[in-house]
Amino acid sequence: MTRTRDPDVTGPDRRGRRAATRRTMILNAAATSMALHGYERVTLEQIGEQVGLSATGLYHYVSGKEDILAQLLTDTIEEIGRETDRLADGSVDPLVLLRAFVRAHLRVAVTTPAGRVLSNHQDIVVSDTYSDTIREARRRHERRLESIIADGAAEQVFRAPDPHNTARFVLGALNGVPRWAGSQATAVLTDSIAEQLVDHLINGIGTGPDTAGG
Amino acid sequence: MTRTRDPDVTGPDRRGRRAATRRTMILNAAATSMALHGYERVTLEQIGEQVGLSATGLYHYVSGKEDILAQLLTDTIEEIGRETDRLADGSVDPLVLLRAFVRAHLRVAVTTPAGRVLSNHQDIVVSDTYSDTIREARRRHERRLESIIADGAAEQVFRAPDPHNTARFVLGALNGVPRWAGSQATAVLTDSIAEQLVDHLINGIGTGPDTAGG
Repeated sequence: MTRTRDPDVTGPDRRGRRAATRRTMILNAAATSMALHGYERVTLEQIGEQVGLSATGLYHYVSGKEDILAQLLTDTIEEIGRETDRLADGSVDPLVLLRAFVRAHLRVAVTTPAGRVLSNHQDIVVSDTYSDTIREARRRHERRLESIIADGAAEQVFRAPDPHNTARFVLGALNGVPRWAGSQATAVLTDSIAEQLVDHLINGIGTGPDTAGG
Repeated sequence: MTRTRDPDVTGPDRRGRRAATRRTMILNAAATSMALHGYERVTLEQIGEQVGLSATGLYHYVSGKEDILAQLLTDTIEEIGRETDRLADGSVDPLVLLRAFVRAHLRVAVTTPAGRVLSNHQDIVVSDTYSDTIREARRRHERRLESIIADGAAEQVFRAPDPHNTARFVLGALNGVPRWAGSQATAVLTDSIAEQLVDHLINGIGTGPDTAGG
């Protein structure tokens, strides 16, 4: 949403802005609660309490808990995308893009409540029983990483016969990090974890020329 | 528990065996339900229904839902340990052990309901709010993989400056697999996924001699 500072702004527009602000407050409160207690345990009543609304009042801004979750996960995935672009800084080098993706994912996943919800609720993100919005956002994210790997393979910078599975392995490793790195981890720590992961992924841990054969 | 076929077996022993059998039935029913619907959504009433017991009746055999989960996860982790030993077949080669661990974890995690519960509920497995039993089982599993990697690093078969984090990356990637491989995946498919993961981990996807530097 674009915010204009037009002095001629009319009543309904102002109400629209207030509603958008209220919706953002609701999403932030929900992210914090869900990161702490898990999606299943958080009720609309609890979310409402934090923003001074009844559960009924909440329905003016969101259509339910699943709508909140879908919006949180979609926003988070878009934020990781923007952070990836920022870190890659226009480069088309597959290795630069891969490192940017891994760093961006970890920064957002570890240091933001919504990022922790994304990491903790992969069962929901992948499930068929939740909304198409969630599933589509997850697929966009997975395809972004898969494209980086496939492009690198096409340029022979990477050796990845199955970029889809490679992307899934990397996302699995990434989604595990917030659980063990702790919510107090700094960007410096998450960047160092990102570097270890990228180093393993690129160079492997084997010391021989082809130690995995056989 | 050891099962004796002593013909002098007395009433209480037989009752003990029946109780153990009943407890196993309860655990199997719970694993199936929790794998399908998630730990949070499954109630003791639903588990009881599947084995013909009321929720009150269940309390003769288990002390609650968390007790069931702890037992399921502990059993599963022990099963992965036994399968690792079986696949490694006495070898002390770090690469053989690593491959055995990854294969064993995926076989159990993908093809058994309790294994899927383990993979889906990493938030619980890592959490401080659940039982020590769950946390201890998780740590044993993590330490087992960490030891394989650390031993390989000591023998200079692996280059892994931080075996603890390396183990966590691998476990993250492993825990993600049941979510995308589907519950119908065969042992052949999980072994092939295991092989891709081990190949990435050992050889990396980079084609250059040290493409990750910088």
